[in-house]
Amino acid sequence: MAHRSRLYTVSVDVPADVHDEELAFWEGAVGREMPVVPAHPDFHRTTLPGQEVILITQRLREGAPGIHVDIHTDDLDAEVARLEKLGAVKERFTESGWWIMRDPAGLRFCVLEDPPGTLHEANSTFWD
Amino acid sequence: MAHRSRLYTVSVDVPADVHDEELAFWEGAVGREMPVVPAHPDFHRTTLPGQEVILITQRLREGAPGIHVDIHTDDLDAEVARLEKLGAVKERFTESGWWIMRDPAGLRFCVLEDPPGTLHEANSTFWD
Repeated sequence: MAHRSRLYTVSVDVPADVHDEELAFWEGAVGREMPVVPAHPDFHRTTLPGQEVILITQRLREGAPGIHVDIHTDDLDAEVARLEKLGAVKERFTESGWWIMRDPAGLRFCVLEDPPGTLHEANSTFWD
Repeated sequence: MAHRSRLYTVSVDVPADVHDEELAFWEGAVGREMPVVPAHPDFHRTTLPGQEVILITQRLREGAPGIHVDIHTDDLDAEVARLEKLGAVKERFTESGWWIMRDPAGLRFCVLEDPPGTLHEANSTFWD
């Protein structure tokens, strides 16, 4: 069960009718273009100056605007089990292969698996 | 008007009745203690491994749970004016000295001024 994880993504989630305006605002706010994520056209993303954390916008199909964070790991099952022990609950496993969970206050966050080697001593926490 | 800014804080905002459970969860999730911010006892904070972005929890006096981000700058007036031109609107200036603004989707974010020298070429964006 030894693995690594890190808080990696800040996602600004907005309804379709305000998506383009919101995307343009956050591109301007951080001073970087946010290209579409080819495999997930509802997502646009950018890195941030001097940081590993990334910023994403997500076009919502339904629901109110909000912000959520993603945790990335090199062992999805181990990390989800670790977070469940801490008090999070599974909501659902997506077709794209990540878990949507809820924290104790009911806030949604996602847990995604990165390719081996992406997480290392300098950018993540080791759990054994 | 030449100044710097950066996206710096992820704040998990939760009602008082779930605050302690939520704080303990996020401390466990990122693997770091989140000490109280002495000047602002409703806030607990931590740095994150290998990143400049910080994680905060905020005990809310009212309202629903959510997540917001803060932008830090070395020139508060210039940065607020820049963000207004991009489509954000001022909500209010707090007693603690930062601005609460809303983005085009209506999501709240805060703009805070850091001491001179905190923001530099490696961790922020320069606006002139």
